[in-house]
Amino acid sequence: MVTIRDVAKLAGVSVATVSRVLNNSISSEKSRLAVLQAVEKLEYSPNANAQALALKNTDTIGVVVTDVTDSFFAILVKAVDQVASEYGKSILIGIGYHNAEKEKNAIDTLLRKRCSCLVVHSKALDDKTLKNYLDNVPSMVIINRVIKGYEHRCVNLDNQRGTFLATETLISLGHKKIGYIGSNHNISDEEERRNGYLDALKTYQLNKLNSAIVHTSPDFDGGEKAMIELLSYHSDLTAVVTYNDNIAAGALSVLNENNIKVPEQFSVIGFDDMPIARYLIPKLTTIRYPIDLMASYAAKLALNLADKTFECPSYVQFKPTLVKRFSIENAPKK
Amino acid sequence: MVTIRDVAKLAGVSVATVSRVLNNSISSEKSRLAVLQAVEKLEYSPNANAQALALKNTDTIGVVVTDVTDSFFAILVKAVDQVASEYGKSILIGIGYHNAEKEKNAIDTLLRKRCSCLVVHSKALDDKTLKNYLDNVPSMVIINRVIKGYEHRCVNLDNQRGTFLATETLISLGHKKIGYIGSNHNISDEEERRNGYLDALKTYQLNKLNSAIVHTSPDFDGGEKAMIELLSYHSDLTAVVTYNDNIAAGALSVLNENNIKVPEQFSVIGFDDMPIARYLIPKLTTIRYPIDLMASYAAKLALNLADKTFECPSYVQFKPTLVKRFSIENAPKK
Repeated sequence: MVTIRDVAKLAGVSVATVSRVLNNSISSEKSRLAVLQAVEKLEYSPNANAQALALKNTDTIGVVVTDVTDSFFAILVKAVDQVASEYGKSILIGIGYHNAEKEKNAIDTLLRKRCSCLVVHSKALDDKTLKNYLDNVPSMVIINRVIKGYEHRCVNLDNQRGTFLATETLISLGHKKIGYIGSNHNISDEEERRNGYLDALKTYQLNKLNSAIVHTSPDFDGGEKAMIELLSYHSDLTAVVTYNDNIAAGALSVLNENNIKVPEQFSVIGFDDMPIARYLIPKLTTIRYPIDLMASYAAKLALNLADKTFECPSYVQFKPTLVKRFSIENAPKK
Repeated sequence: MVTIRDVAKLAGVSVATVSRVLNNSISSEKSRLAVLQAVEKLEYSPNANAQALALKNTDTIGVVVTDVTDSFFAILVKAVDQVASEYGKSILIGIGYHNAEKEKNAIDTLLRKRCSCLVVHSKALDDKTLKNYLDNVPSMVIINRVIKGYEHRCVNLDNQRGTFLATETLISLGHKKIGYIGSNHNISDEEERRNGYLDALKTYQLNKLNSAIVHTSPDFDGGEKAMIELLSYHSDLTAVVTYNDNIAAGALSVLNENNIKVPEQFSVIGFDDMPIARYLIPKLTTIRYPIDLMASYAAKLALNLADKTFECPSYVQFKPTLVKRFSIENAPKK
């Protein structure tokens, strides 16, 4: 953990001087160079550190999400806002768009805006960068990701259990040829969800089928493309487990266009339980991701880390659950 | 327009003293009382005024929306964020939840956070309150509402034209018995959209049907309930114009459950063109509300009002357009 003190020591200047340099206040050119060299050598993250040290401000909770037009993140933001309102606080939002630089920018902006309580959803930044933030921003909480050594400040869901449950449910209905449509984003969620599917096949001694796993963009169009691909390779699939509800929506659309009746001839199961799941025809059976509860917990945890007078519910491991609607049924008889 | 100077004059103190009192800084009890009495008498809005006067800060654009989990507002927020990013700025979001006090709170919080550029979506606050803010926050812009006398700072859509277009399109397909499902929120959008429907019936000399106008909560469940109501009263309706896509989604669901085929037996047309419209089966024909373009324009206008060096596109009147998909067709032959 690199602190401003380490930088000051290496540069041979005072902490105040480091702070002045990092805030572009007046300083001698000699000090400035020494500080910047020390910052570079120690890979010190000036914004996060310098700002966080100055802060014990809890009147605004900062939230970093990937994209507010994705319901998942909108629900996350709303849940944090509701905790904030409850305590007479406000929220500030940064948007990362799956991009490391933008995620970093979003966090740094929130710190500059004097948010010391942060709820951060970051998939693009590497562990090292996030660890540096976590070390220097003591009331920062990570959501939907686990950073080793910081588990108590990470709020996460057991993704693998979710797709295991989805696949197991289909198997219990007699399905033996089950496909999987995953995300083509290079994030841990995809690996965990795919593993849950594979693990269930293995547990129930079903063969993994060739070309029955497809990766696609995790949206409606991606779901359409992937379902077309699965139908092109396989005439005998009777069910598909999908990475999320948007993909499931696209899959349903293609099945409908091909006059394949859901659920009589083909079962589809989603993941997340976003509002869209209830809008589809048939209404989508899916795995519930309790992002509202998790975000609410994360916000309370961030406040509690900043100021122990804020109560925080005791730590829980969040679990996915099955939401039964009308898109799955017994496997069709041959 | 009440300013801090008016308050100072009536209280018989300096502007600086008013400012100190309103910011809870040290002041004599006598001055404090005089200022507070003057504030009350003049109905002066201290937060908005006092803060705005102190501010010419454009590094953060403040946005007030009703609920980020509604796609409409999520798209609005994202569009403002994209303008902000383009100029190296960030955004701060306040959420009003259709509640006057919360809307006021959201605006005041943004002003306290030194946002002088505001894009505000407010339906619950009255005209007088908004006028007071507009007078005292010169770079505040109103979206999706027109305040008389401030038209150049209001970014609005011609709602009436939208439902006129929707109804006219159905009429051109031979539909004569057309229902309307409106919102039960007491906002101008509803009145305008209902008027567009009625105006089209009148223009094409169709009779207004009894009980063919239903009002409901503008969401999926509301759409389900309203469609059930319409079907209960009318066996001869062949089409429905809806207040928004969520209501249309609920209507489609009920029609499907009742084995009424869309569009062969019944046509449904939405409003807004939210992402959900493309997910439905059949994909929804709807009226496009260009909230992304409007929000982007509003953000640029707010920056331009704060600082003329920011370019602002010339004023346009935003118009709704028809998006043809697969939920409408010729009226069924009797």
